[in-house]
Amino acid sequence: MNEFMQEALAEARKGKANFSEIPVGAVVVRDGEIIARAHNEKENLSDPTAHAEILAIRRAAELLGDWRLSSCDLYVTLEPCPMCMAAIREARIRRLYSGAYKPLDAPSLPSPETYSGIEEDACTELLKDFFKSRREKI
Amino acid sequence: MNEFMQEALAEARKGKANFSEIPVGAVVVRDGEIIARAHNEKENLSDPTAHAEILAIRRAAELLGDWRLSSCDLYVTLEPCPMCMAAIREARIRRLYSGAYKPLDAPSLPSPETYSGIEEDACTELLKDFFKSRREKI
Repeated sequence: MNEFMQEALAEARKGKANFSEIPVGAVVVRDGEIIARAHNEKENLSDPTAHAEILAIRRAAELLGDWRLSSCDLYVTLEPCPMCMAAIREARIRRLYSGAYKPLDAPSLPSPETYSGIEEDACTELLKDFFKSRREKI
Repeated sequence: MNEFMQEALAEARKGKANFSEIPVGAVVVRDGEIIARAHNEKENLSDPTAHAEILAIRRAAELLGDWRLSSCDLYVTLEPCPMCMAAIREARIRRLYSGAYKPLDAPSLPSPETYSGIEEDACTELLKDFFKSRREKI
């Protein structure tokens, strides 16, 4: 029995009452204690990013006042999707524990029509100026 | 001159005053009108997911009351990172317009230590039951 995955499961069950919300739960653990809990609320919040992992990460970061969660572990009842996996990396999560495996034939989402290099010079200049000013400040 | 990218640039400049916040801006456009604007606020909000694209997508979805942004286009001043690219797909954004190109040698973030299949049976059962009940409901 993994205590923290059981807590993530309890979170997942909270979303289950709503038949449109896929029940996935997550908890963030730091120094052996749960500091944030969340379940998938994409439909409930009308937010395409409101997967359990992202909500739990955002709550933990808010609590700690730091976006770096390098002292935190994440428990989630289902293997993370590409968006959540990238968010887990962005947050510097130390260890990831997942429960159910995703089906190998899970379809990947299509990409939007993409146009790059729009106003490229102005956009590049802004970033260059910023990094130059920051170096001069330090 | 691309009007919408200019607006995204104006958003990016808002983040520039804070020297720790990389200035990136984004706008969401629907039927030729900007319905959401955002700039990177990762440091300001202590939120690892608060990139310009994700904030703009969340604001647009909240406004429309629907996580599906398939009638919306996104303008962003820098090519999206993997997290934002996946969020753009999750949100079903129709067209993506980006400004500056990311350097080809941009380092990718390391993955956390990963442990899969924790309480696999219980986690899998919860999802199976959910999809079975939902099918029976329909």
